[in-house]
Parts: sequence; structure tokens; C-alpha cells
Amino acid sequence: MGTKVMIPLCSDFGEKHGSICIFGTGDFGRSLGSKLMQNGYSVVFGSRHPGETSLLPRGAEVLSHAEAVQNCSIIIVAVQRDHYDFLKNLKEALEGKILVDVSNNLTINQYPDSNAEYLAQIVPRATVVKAFNTVSAWALQSGSLDASRQVFVCSNDSQAKQQIMDIIRAIGLTPQDKGSLGMAKEIEDYPLQLFPMWRLPMCTCAGLTVLVFLYCVIQDIIYNAEKNIDVSYLLMITIPNRIFPVVSLMLLALCYLPGAFAAIIQLYRGTKYSRFPNWLDRWMLCRKQLGLVALSYAFLHAIYTLVIPIRYSARHRTETFIINQVMLNKTRAFEKPLTWRSDTYLALGILGFFFYIVLGITSLPSVSNAVNWREFRFVQSKLGYLTLLLCTGHAMVFGWNRFLLLDRYRWYMPPVYTLSLVIPCVVLILKLVLIIPCIDTRITKIRQGWERSPSKKAETKLKTCSL
Amino acid sequence: MGTKVMIPLCSDFGEKHGSICIFGTGDFGRSLGSKLMQNGYSVVFGSRHPGETSLLPRGAEVLSHAEAVQNCSIIIVAVQRDHYDFLKNLKEALEGKILVDVSNNLTINQYPDSNAEYLAQIVPRATVVKAFNTVSAWALQSGSLDASRQVFVCSNDSQAKQQIMDIIRAIGLTPQDKGSLGMAKEIEDYPLQLFPMWRLPMCTCAGLTVLVFLYCVIQDIIYNAEKNIDVSYLLMITIPNRIFPVVSLMLLALCYLPGAFAAIIQLYRGTKYSRFPNWLDRWMLCRKQLGLVALSYAFLHAIYTLVIPIRYSARHRTETFIINQVMLNKTRAFEKPLTWRSDTYLALGILGFFFYIVLGITSLPSVSNAVNWREFRFVQSKLGYLTLLLCTGHAMVFGWNRFLLLDRYRWYMPPVYTLSLVIPCVVLILKLVLIIPCIDTRITKIRQGWERSPSKKAETKLKTCSL
Amino acid sequence: MGTKVMIPLCSDFGEKHGSICIFGTGDFGRSLGSKLMQNGYSVVFGSRHPGETSLLPRGAEVLSHAEAVQNCSIIIVAVQRDHYDFLKNLKEALEGKILVDVSNNLTINQYPDSNAEYLAQIVPRATVVKAFNTVSAWALQSGSLDASRQVFVCSNDSQAKQQIMDIIRAIGLTPQDKGSLGMAKEIEDYPLQLFPMWRLPMCTCAGLTVLVFLYCVIQDIIYNAEKNIDVSYLLMITIPNRIFPVVSLMLLALCYLPGAFAAIIQLYRGTKYSRFPNWLDRWMLCRKQLGLVALSYAFLHAIYTLVIPIRYSARHRTETFIINQVMLNKTRAFEKPLTWRSDTYLALGILGFFFYIVLGITSLPSVSNAVNWREFRFVQSKLGYLTLLLCTGHAMVFGWNRFLLLDRYRWYMPPVYTLSLVIPCVVLILKLVLIIPCIDTRITKIRQGWERSPSKKAETKLKTCSL
Repeated sequence: MGTKVMIPLCSDFGEKHGSICIFGTGDFGRSLGSKLMQNGYSVVFGSRHPGETSLLPRGAEVLSHAEAVQNCSIIIVAVQRDHYDFLKNLKEALEGKILVDVSNNLTINQYPDSNAEYLAQIVPRATVVKAFNTVSAWALQSGSLDASRQVFVCSNDSQAKQQIMDIIRAIGLTPQDKGSLGMAKEIEDYPLQLFPMWRLPMCTCAGLTVLVFLYCVIQDIIYNAEKNIDVSYLLMITIPNRIFPVVSLMLLALCYLPGAFAAIIQLYRGTKYSRFPNWLDRWMLCRKQLGLVALSYAFLHAIYTLVIPIRYSARHRTETFIINQVMLNKTRAFEKPLTWRSDTYLALGILGFFFYIVLGITSLPSVSNAVNWREFRFVQSKLGYLTLLLCTGHAMVFGWNRFLLLDRYRWYMPPVYTLSLVIPCVVLILKLVLIIPCIDTRITKIRQGWERSPSKKAETKLKTCSL
Repeated sequence: MGTKVMIPLCSDFGEKHGSICIFGTGDFGRSLGSKLMQNGYSVVFGSRHPGETSLLPRGAEVLSHAEAVQNCSIIIVAVQRDHYDFLKNLKEALEGKILVDVSNNLTINQYPDSNAEYLAQIVPRATVVKAFNTVSAWALQSGSLDASRQVFVCSNDSQAKQQIMDIIRAIGLTPQDKGSLGMAKEIEDYPLQLFPMWRLPMCTCAGLTVLVFLYCVIQDIIYNAEKNIDVSYLLMITIPNRIFPVVSLMLLALCYLPGAFAAIIQLYRGTKYSRFPNWLDRWMLCRKQLGLVALSYAFLHAIYTLVIPIRYSARHRTETFIINQVMLNKTRAFEKPLTWRSDTYLALGILGFFFYIVLGITSLPSVSNAVNWREFRFVQSKLGYLTLLLCTGHAMVFGWNRFLLLDRYRWYMPPVYTLSLVIPCVVLILKLVLIIPCIDTRITKIRQGWERSPSKKAETKLKTCSL
Repeated sequence: MGTKVMIPLCSDFGEKHGSICIFGTGDFGRSLGSKLMQNGYSVVFGSRHPGETSLLPRGAEVLSHAEAVQNCSIIIVAVQRDHYDFLKNLKEALEGKILVDVSNNLTINQYPDSNAEYLAQIVPRATVVKAFNTVSAWALQSGSLDASRQVFVCSNDSQAKQQIMDIIRAIGLTPQDKGSLGMAKEIEDYPLQLFPMWRLPMCTCAGLTVLVFLYCVIQDIIYNAEKNIDVSYLLMITIPNRIFPVVSLMLLALCYLPGAFAAIIQLYRGTKYSRFPNWLDRWMLCRKQLGLVALSYAFLHAIYTLVIPIRYSARHRTETFIINQVMLNKTRAFEKPLTWRSDTYLALGILGFFFYIVLGITSLPSVSNAVNWREFRFVQSKLGYLTLLLCTGHAMVFGWNRFLLLDRYRWYMPPVYTLSLVIPCVVLILKLVLIIPCIDTRITKIRQGWERSPSKKAETKLKTCSL
């Protein structure tokens, strides 16, 4: 899906477009220059040592910085921020020109201000546009733009921005207007990110996985090893298939816990204009990722479960069981309650998994963009709680009364499924309390802007901005 | 997926942008004002009782309406439509200004005209822009913009529209130009919708589900209860797993039935320029949703089926069967025809399900946007009919000759799978007729604009517009 | 998902917009005209025989070409390219007007130049804009715009382009600026494409499928038929379920092979500035599609496998096995190594499939647009190799030592799973070599623009552009 645009390498529509100056003959400057030339722009390179530069695309002039600037209104500064100083000597030559800052940093927050704003400060009479930093030299050369073709652009001058956006479009990329130059910092941080919103959910998930794994290992493998029974083969499927559902259910409940906390805080404070504690803010912002991690564990649980009848150990158990029954010459009676229980927890699990997946699909960017707020909240809240309810029910019916059979407690450790039920039950009880009509009305009022005692609250409200 | 933009709460880039006036100090006005101030705009609030207003973000001035307007060219009217009247007294002060209507109604079609057009009528010398109505106060405050960041904008003045779109971008949202002010009604209806296109498919699906459920309950549970056999445990998995495939197949066929009807109507009338009856239009517009509901039922059918060998009742049946055979000292012979049939219907079902899912993926907004018309129609038509064919085949081979075994008819009710085959067979036969070369050529000609007797048809054509 | 915009058929906001002239009264011209009129534009048709034209939307004037042009600044040329000649006589009348070329060709590369450029050449003093060619007359009439609403627009005059884009928005479509008129060729080719990027992967997949199918048929069915054993029933599920995993694994490995080749070529040449051979370029550009085809086969393999315990033949085999054991009065001992092996290959397969699906989701346009380059490469490269490793491991543990048991070789043909391992092992070994630190450093340097001997290489670099 997605058709590749095959731009002719040596198009001959020549000098249709204007001349663009590129400062810097490094990898990115050369790649961008060559791409621009392929699309009909004439390119002039500006270099400290114009004679020594090799490796440039054929047809490109290399001049000194001052000479290169003369006939161009657009200058692309493909130079590290550390070397911006040379621009101070070109102040007059650069007056009224458009400077395009393409630089990236090595780490987030390397400098207090953004490179583009720093450039604007060095050459105050030029117009600075931030662009191209999300594209790699490699992508420009290979033309394989499978990843994002988006180029974020920002500038305080909307006409200059427009010109640069036209160039971006001309070379087959998609400009995205990010507003004023103040957004440059964010644009510069963007390519350095590696799933920042996923870090907290991933760590939570990893932590829970390790804990539950150790719990299972102690309860099953070590407990049996004590008795000289080696059941280490459980490590491959049985134990993972105990970890996945337990952690998945916990994570799903953790998606809805902060919402409940937030409602309680708002109820207690009687206003929505005070800020939540920081940890709650961070937690609330990563709920989507938390949910997707939970979904992936639920998916793994589903397949691990469906695969059971194919496993050698399961088949062997069935065989042995049947053969033993034949030997003893007896038949197991058909127990209807057992059928009900077995079918109920399977049905609850399947329905829970189904709504889980619907939630996952709704969080795809293109789908969530196509629904309005009312629809989004309907799905994420109503459907979300339904999913949590179904999955909690699934775990409960699965476990049934096993948590009461104390002889099943190995080393006084309750079965692992009981652990998984703690957080979901807390969340569901909180939710149940919060939808009691009188409390629900109060929360709705607070969320619409009502406050318990406006006069007193007014001073504390939005105080972060008064500092 | 989707990175959150963390906008600094107290940015200090101060007075870079111009001053914006907000009429109304309600929840939305305050939230938007505070968001604008965080992004460097200075905000002036206009209020009836400027002295009494508390709760406003620090740094915001509150003046009377007339005073507030003086130094601003953009006024955001964050006031209910019912209170627009006060603007009549400000006519002179508002001359030449840009008024942004952010209002929403409580119900669709609450007023005959849109709020924005009503505003334009009250203050005819100002330029009205409709915007921001898709964003909630809650989203602006919490910054958690997981749902759509889209802000629909419309206006008759493209320059004013451009200015407002710049502001929208500056505060991290995505403006979408919807054209002239005539679109305001649609924009105002948008946030009130709750899956309007899904209502008909959902109701159809619910109705069919209930019918098939009752049919199965009568045929299985009540029929057996008559004989004092309690098989109510079938309710959890066996009966749902009979409902899902039957309804799913019906719904899939219902996706393709209106297309066949449309072709027949066009053939009969000999033109494509006459409008279809209303019910057909509505039906055709919700085919995609109908297909997705059918897919979700097919998905549930797949999992309910895969889960069978894990069920206690299935395992018990196997055990009993084997033990009985051992007791009787005989072995079931390997029947090749049975193998063929069993494998064939499974294979047909799997392949049908696979293409079903491909169809579902293609209907994701981002995927369908990436294909052209020819590709979209290829997938939705060719692949769609292939899916229908495979699934119909799956049901047929599954049922085999069971519909002939009259002793299987309980209370003269045919097995439920035969019911599911009626609509698909009708659709497939219609399609078969429609692709007979001579008929196909005729339809193609009609769809390219040809008419049987142009002179006669010309009067009736597009008559809806001549009224 | 995706809400339909229901544009009122007979809006009465009348003459708000300007007058638009449409040359040509064919199907597309009429449909577009009627759509424009519904949205408040007044439309004038230009025709060779203005008196004879019927079928036009009510309210539309039909004049001769010269007359129609007079009061319109925008002319939509809805005429076949072959008939553009009449425009030569209108040169004066068309001076300074905007001509919109909406034409499509019947085949790709039907003409050497694009229709729009040809039009610009015929009427050099008019401004030509290419637009509307991706929309069908059918879509305009029926209003069912389920597929792409995108209208690609290009022109050398950005103001004219802007005007046309405003009209496109006004009738509910989404304009996409494609740059200068040089892009017209690509825009004209777009609606004629039928999954061009999928052709090579599909053919590769089909070829491999046929080969593996024949191999399996010979090895299983014909080999047994020789001995007068009819196992043709394997054709429905057993053999497909052998083909899917084998071909899927091969295709997945083929996704990563060209990357390894590219690295070797770059290492050998000591530069990244020489172009790859053509076949390698084509191969690299369709890696995503190759991967998705491989994923669909993996999906089929997963379901075909999960369905095994439901099959009649599998159930029969279990029964027979158990009954035989009972008859012989013996029990199969529980073999722990076998459990380990069975569980390990299932677990590897499930995990491999899981990451496969994550890769697939990441290649959805909306998801890949939401990640930056660093994240995209992390997923596609790191996660991709992990998937390949898991799937290769899955096949290896599944096969175990079977390839050593020569008595299993039928007609000296090794078991089919060994064949599937050849390419993945080659790819994994190549990758292993390429991540040896000293080699990895070299490649990284080359990819950052370094060259072995710049002076010598400078001449050959980008030589394609010096021709």
C-alpha cells in the first residue's frame, strides 16, 4: 500500500525553478543538493574551501560563502550548530534572505534554545525557517521513503515558510506547517525520540512480567523440584500462558485506575482547575500505550491457549487419562456445572478479547482521527469498562473457588490468578461508586467548570502560570 | 503510536503574537484563553460584568465588551447562541473584525440555520469564521488530545480563515478547511453525532441475531426440554457459534445485494441519471459498516470454533466415544469422503475469513486513502464476491446433505445453516446473471453515461435540482 | 468509521461563488457541472453544437465555446486529448484564463508528454492546472466517496492552483498539492495503476507456491500413489499448511536479503554514491509488499495449524492410536525431551507470528506516518531480524533431526522444511558477518558519506546525472 513516487534521476526541465544556495558540503548538504537538482533547481554550494571540495553532484557550483549567497534568496544552512559563527561575518550579505535551518542535535535538550532560534539571533535581519531535519541523507539518496515523508516546517514569516513548503512538495515530500519559530525546539527533538510515550508502559509491563514469572517459577517449578519432580518443561508454554493473562489484566486495569483517581481528586478538591500531581499526569498520558501493551499480551494469551490441544504434553495427558479410565473400567460422568463453568469462562474471555481488539483498532491514528470526541470517549470509556468487566469475569469464572481450596496453596502462596484480580476489582468498585447518581452529577458539574467555592479557589487556579 | 506534544505551560515568548479578544468567561472561553496565552498570545476577555469575573487565567485582562474589542482584530465568541443578541449593540465596534463562532448545539437540527450563519446575519459587517467547535474545554486543559486534533474551519472570507487556521496550528491542533460558511451547519452537527452510519447496520445485525437466537433456542433447547433433556448449557458457546456464522454470512450478502438491485434498476430504466429510491440509497451508503459488522461476527465465529477442543464438553465427548469403542471392541474405519468434506469446509472457511480480513484492512481510512479508485473497486468488488463465494461454499460443504435428512427436521424447522444460505445464493445468482456478457456490456455503457432514449429521459434526469 | 458528508442536493445559496465554464458535455463534464451547481457555483457549458446538447443539469447554460468563455476566468476542459485542437482557435479568448485539465489516458505512457503539458503548449498564454482526474463521474454523482477523496493538483502558477484547490474543497473533496506541472504525468498515471508495487512480490509468491506445491505433491501424494496408497485428501489442509510456512519464511528472508546485498556492494565499492544494479533497486523498493505477502501466508499457516484438532482425520488418528494402545495393553511413557521440543517450536512460532503482526501494523500508512525515522528503522530492522530469527528457529526446532534420517527421504528428496531454511540461514549468516564490529563501523562510515578514495571515486559518483 502506498505508491512510490519514482522521480526521474536526470530530469531535464532545467532552470525552471530558482537557484538555491547550500552552505556546507557534508553528507546531508550534498544529498539535498542532488535531490534539488534532480527536480530542476539549480544549486550553488557555499564552502570555506571551495577549491578543495570534491564529491559534489555534477553541475553544482562551489563558491565561497559570500559569493554563493549573491544570486540566491534561499540559503540552506547544512552546517553543525557549533560552526554557525562564520555567519556573523556574512550579516550584510544575508540581509533579507531566507535561511533554512536543517540541523539536528545529538541528544534532546543539548542546548537551552533551539538551533533555529539561535540562528535567528546570530543573523537577525534574515528570515529563519526550520525544515528538513526529519529527513535523513540516506532517505534522500535512496528514494526509499517508506517511513514518514513529513517535513515539519516552522517560521515567524509565513511567506518564507510558504516558499520552503513549495520546495519540499516539489521534491516529493509532505510539508507540515508547525507554526512559529518557537516550535523549532520541538521539531528538533522529534527525530531523536525513540518511542518516548512507550517507555513507562514498557517498563511497567516488564516489571510485572518479571514479578509474575518469579512467582510462578517458585510456586510451580521450585516447589516441585523440592519434591524431586522436574516440571521445568512448563517454562516454555504453561508458565508464559499464566503470565500473559495475569499481566494483561493488571495493565488493562491500570489504564482505568488513573481516570478514577482523577475523578476522586476533582471531587475532593471540588474543582477541575487545580493541576493533578505530576505522576498522575504522566500516567494518564500513557494510557493508550498501556492499553496496547495489555492488548498484545492478551493476544499472546489467546494463541498460547488455542495451541494447547496441539501440544505433545496435552495430547499425552488425554491419552493417559483415557487409557487409565479404560483400565479401571469406568467412565467419567458428564457434569453439567463443569460444562457451564468451562463454557462461560471461554465465552467471557473471547468476548473480552474481541472488545479489546476493537479498542486497539480505534486507537489507530487514522481511525481515531475519523471519529469525533463523543464517539472516541464512548468507545474508550464505555467499551473499555465493558472489556475490563468481561476480562475480570473471565478470570473469576476460570479460577472459581480455587482460591478457597487451601490445600492448593503451595508455601501459602495463593494461586496467581487471584493476584491478577486485585487491581481490576479495585477499579471496578471505584467505578461503581463513581457512577452512583449523586456522585456522578457532582463530577459532571465539576467537569463543566463548576467549583465548590469559586471565591476561595480563584487564587489557586492555574497558579503555575502566575509564577 | 502518535507522539504527544508537550507544550510548556508558562512559555515566555510573550507578546510575539497579536492580541485576541474572547467574549464570554465560561468554561470553554477560559480554557481556550489559557491555551492561547500559553502559546504567546495576549488575551483580552470581554464580559458583561467585568468586575465580577473570577477564575480567569492570570495575566488576562477582563474588560467590558466594547472596551475589549478595541485593540483586537479577532474576537472569539464563546457565548451560547441564545445570548448573541448583545452583539447587536456592538455593531459599529465589530465592523471589519473577524468573529470566530465556536458554539455547538445540544441536538442536531436544534435551529433551522447554523449558529455561525445566524451570527453573520446579526453582525453583517464583520467576517464570521466557524472554528474550534470540535474541541472540548476538557481536551484543551488536559492536553490529552488522544482523539482527533482536527479543527474544522469554514468562512466566506479566505484571508480571515487563513488567520484563524494559523492560530489553530500555533496551539498544536490541525485545522481542516471545510470551505464556505454554508458548511457551518455540518460542522456544528459533527460533534453531536454518535456513529450515525453505524445505526442501520447495528440494528440489522441485532435484529437478525435475535431472530436466529430464538430459532436456535426453539430448535435445540426447547425441543429437547420437551423430551426432558436439559441441554441449556449449549447457550454459552454452541448456540452463539451457530448464530455468528449465520448472521455474518447474511450480513455479508446484504452488502452486495443493493449493488445488484442498483444494476437492475439502471438496466430497467436504461439510464443512470434517475435517482435510486431512498431506501436503496441509505442501504448503499452503509455497506462498509455492514461489512465490518459481518467481519466482527466472522471473527467471533473463528475463535469460538478454534476453542472447541479445549471445552470440557468436547473433551468429555471424545473420551466417552473412545471408551465406548474400546468396550465394544471395535474401531471406527477411516472414511476418506468424510476427511475430504471436513477438510474442504475448514479450508473454505479459513480462506473466506482471510479475504474477509483483507477487506476489513482495506476499509481502514489510511489504507483506502492510499489506493486509487481502480484499486479500491478491485478489492471491494472482486475480492468481496470471492469472499462471499468462499463463505457460501463453506456453509454448503459444512451442511452437506443434512437439509435432505428430514428426520433431522425438528418440528419441521430446517437446520439453521440452510436459512443462512438463502440471501447469499440470491446475490450470487443475480451477480452471475449480471456478468453475462450482453448484460454486462449494457450496464457498463449505462454507467459511462449512455441512455436508452436520451430525448425522453432528458426531462426526468436530475429533476431533483429543477424543483 | 469515516463519516459521510451529506451535501444537500439543491442548496439555495445560489450565486455566492463565481461562474465556471466547462468545455465538453460528456459524462464527466455533466457530473462535475452538476456537483458544482449543487455547491453554489453557476456553470456555463461550452459545446461545439450548443443547440443539440441535452442531458445537462437544469439551470446550466450551454453556449458555443467562444461565448461560454467570456465571463469565466476558470475553464474546465472535460474533453479527450485528441480533441484539444479546437482550443487553438480560442487562443485569444483564453488568454490569462485558468484551464483545468481533467483528462486521463487509457494506458500508462500512451503519450510521451502529459496531457496537461500538451494543453499548456497549445494554449501557451493560459495557466494550466491539472486536477480532478482521480475522481470518477460515478463517484461525483453517487456521492459515495468511500475510496479516496483526494484530488491531486499541480500547476506552475501557485495562485491558480490555490483557486482550484478552493473549489475542490468547496465540493467536499480533499485537494493535494503535487507541485509544478511537471508532476502531471505522474498524476495522470495514478488512476491507471493496479497495485504496481504488488506485482513483483505477488509473482514471487505465486512462483514459490507452485514450486513447493509440486514438491509436496511428488513427495507425498505421488510417492504414496506409487505404493497404491491414496492420500490425496492431504491436498485440502495438510499440504497447504506445509506450503504456507515454507513460502512465508522464504519471503520474509527475501525481505532482508537485498539489504544485506546492498551493504556488501557498498563495502566492496567503498562508497555509497554509486547506484545499485537495477534489479536490486526494484527488489528493495518492494520489500514492504513482500513482507505483507509473507505475513498473510504466516496468518494462514497459523489458522490452518490451530484448526488441526478439529479435523476429522486428526481426531480419527487420536482415537485409533489410543484404542491400539489399549488393545496392546501398554501406555506411552511421558518423554520430557519431546515436550520441550514440542513446546519450544510452538512458543517460537507464536512469538515470531506476534512480531510479524507488529511489523505489519507498523506498515499501515497512518502508523508509519506517526513514527520518526529512528523509530521506523528500529521497528523494521531490529524487530524484523528478531522475527526472522524466531521463525527460522521455529522451523529448525520443528524439523529437529529429521533431515538426518535418510530413511525419511522419499526419492532422495529432503523434507520440505529443510528447503525453507536455506535462504533464512544465508540472510542470518550475512547479517552476523555484517554486524562484526570492524565491518559494522566501516558500513556506518560509508553510509555517513565517507569514501575509500575520494579523489578517484569523485568522477564516478552520481555519474548518471552527468550524462
